[in-house]
Amino acid sequence: MAKVFIAGGSGRVATALIKNLVKAGNEVVAGARHTENIISGQHITAVTLELHAPVDEIVHLMKGCTAVYFVAGSRGQDLLQTDAFGAVKTMQAAELCGIKRYIMLSSMYALQPEKWAHYQALADITDYNIAKFFADNYLIHQTSLDYTIIQPAALTEEQPTGKVTFGAGDDTTNTIDDVAQVLADVLPRPNTIGKVIMMRNGKTPIDTALDQL
Amino acid sequence: MAKVFIAGGSGRVATALIKNLVKAGNEVVAGARHTENIISGQHITAVTLELHAPVDEIVHLMKGCTAVYFVAGSRGQDLLQTDAFGAVKTMQAAELCGIKRYIMLSSMYALQPEKWAHYQALADITDYNIAKFFADNYLIHQTSLDYTIIQPAALTEEQPTGKVTFGAGDDTTNTIDDVAQVLADVLPRPNTIGKVIMMRNGKTPIDTALDQL
Repeated sequence: MAKVFIAGGSGRVATALIKNLVKAGNEVVAGARHTENIISGQHITAVTLELHAPVDEIVHLMKGCTAVYFVAGSRGQDLLQTDAFGAVKTMQAAELCGIKRYIMLSSMYALQPEKWAHYQALADITDYNIAKFFADNYLIHQTSLDYTIIQPAALTEEQPTGKVTFGAGDDTTNTIDDVAQVLADVLPRPNTIGKVIMMRNGKTPIDTALDQL
Repeated sequence: MAKVFIAGGSGRVATALIKNLVKAGNEVVAGARHTENIISGQHITAVTLELHAPVDEIVHLMKGCTAVYFVAGSRGQDLLQTDAFGAVKTMQAAELCGIKRYIMLSSMYALQPEKWAHYQALADITDYNIAKFFADNYLIHQTSLDYTIIQPAALTEEQPTGKVTFGAGDDTTNTIDDVAQVLADVLPRPNTIGKVIMMRNGKTPIDTALDQL
């Protein structure tokens, strides 16, 4: 059981993630600019999170938590201050709070820029890829957090399959619910710490795929 | 004497820098998207540099050079692909070419985000600061280049004074010509390697200030 802070708590991934985390017995503190869009329920506390704010304001919100998720995204509208540097602030805040566990929702090939030109869907979101590249690199190289970075293919609202394939590949979609399940399931697994997990829709049950890491 | 590659070779800083480098006996390869805006003269070769291009195209342009300057800037129009990731590509290209020396034109307090809100002029360019923050951090933490990072205050077109003050401070301007002189003068100085030099208009002759580092 953990008390989990979620940055970007009102999005599609966050909503499914929060349900999974509560179901697994965790307390959730969900932060978003518009708290009215955060799912409500038992074991869920909604807080106003402004990623443009100084780090100490974010520290204040995270105090008492034992893990942090970053699932915020500006949909291309504010990449530098939200997706890239907003993420960095939540890492810095986690470290200032003494929180070790940090789970990042990133994007396929965010750390392999040489791949971006090979897939039109990635080439079309080069600015987004760059923002995620810098956020992921900061997490790996400039923090001492116990991170797991999840890099799914393009998110879809299709029905979940409960199955995934980890690693690089040309399949280019991932259902939101499957991604949210992986995000929730890595939390208590020490074998996911320090790992970058690329994923997409696939053929292996999520538990099995995580066991095999 | 060095053969120096300049990324962003058509700008105001670059034009003054190129003159200084040639005067000091160096060969210059100046790269810019619009080569017609690069100053022409003996010991200056203008090449078309597209920072959106893959790293290997930049490698091709840099081959045979012994040092790289990054003085490109998109004036807020393309911060992710030019100021931030364009810079990273030139670092990666330098390393692929076996070039060790790399000199970055950055911006005051680029590595101290906690200062940005304290100065309105910096708060107004938060996106730019973030782009420079990531570029500087990548250079320091993710390359093995012999870097010098110059972080001047706001650039002005006033007459140069030949004098500067290094370090943090509230004076918030720097003449372009003085900055270009510092950029040129650090090239052969081993005592500037691995250093981040914050600077502004000041009272110490440039040579003396560099000797005192």
